[in-house]
Amino acid sequence: MKIISALVVATASLSFSGLASAQFAKPEDAIKYRKNALFVMQQHYARVGAMASGRAPFDAKLAADNAAIAESMSRLPWAAFGEGTDKGDTKAKPEIWKEQAKFKAAADKMQAEMSKLAAAAKTGNLDNIKASFQATSATCKACHDDFRQ
Amino acid sequence: MKIISALVVATASLSFSGLASAQFAKPEDAIKYRKNALFVMQQHYARVGAMASGRAPFDAKLAADNAAIAESMSRLPWAAFGEGTDKGDTKAKPEIWKEQAKFKAAADKMQAEMSKLAAAAKTGNLDNIKASFQATSATCKACHDDFRQ
Repeated sequence: MKIISALVVATASLSFSGLASAQFAKPEDAIKYRKNALFVMQQHYARVGAMASGRAPFDAKLAADNAAIAESMSRLPWAAFGEGTDKGDTKAKPEIWKEQAKFKAAADKMQAEMSKLAAAAKTGNLDNIKASFQATSATCKACHDDFRQ
Repeated sequence: MKIISALVVATASLSFSGLASAQFAKPEDAIKYRKNALFVMQQHYARVGAMASGRAPFDAKLAADNAAIAESMSRLPWAAFGEGTDKGDTKAKPEIWKEQAKFKAAADKMQAEMSKLAAAAKTGNLDNIKASFQATSATCKACHDDFRQ
């Protein structure tokens, strides 16, 4: 579980720590877990995005709450990319396991931007949220381009 | 969305608040969201359970971290039981919408016990964790018996 060890650095200082030792009963559970965590994250993230893009009226509390949950959720998926979870019901590319340092960097970057977004949302300033949302979305896209089929 | 309003009381004072206003693009998204949130919760909860039952060696930090995530996750599913989400890829019984006060009470009870478990895990006392894990599991079972097919 080399990738798990590599990700310790990323998660150890964050609220959802201890995940480096996470264990899944079966590879299928790990795959389901990471997909489910990412879906929950995406749902909250999309609510911030709807406000950032003007598709939904801006509600500062709602933006802050949803960004905070998206940030917390962004910590979770990475421990579930252990060995043996490259096959099955997943769109994960083999590059995740072949280029672990690059994948870790991409995951770290997304979490860092998600934290900035949560901080921006806490200020209640819509312009800050818009800028941070764009930067965060770019990290989502970059990782999907490289590591998702 | 009567049930959502009813659940405001339960979530407003908790860390993951603001969910009462959560909006899903489609009923399918709400159903997927609540199932995914519950699965993520269950995975972390099961790790605490493995230690509580002696199937896994006790690691106080790991127990506390996993119980904390399970507690956070336990706040999320309820906003996704809105109107129109009773049909589709779900085992939810019609009783959820017919007996909303009872369902809310069951959801509240589970969250309260999950908070006690997180507090017990924070103390690092395995006996406290065992007792609290049993009480929490009883709330899971009660809700599943009444509200899940």
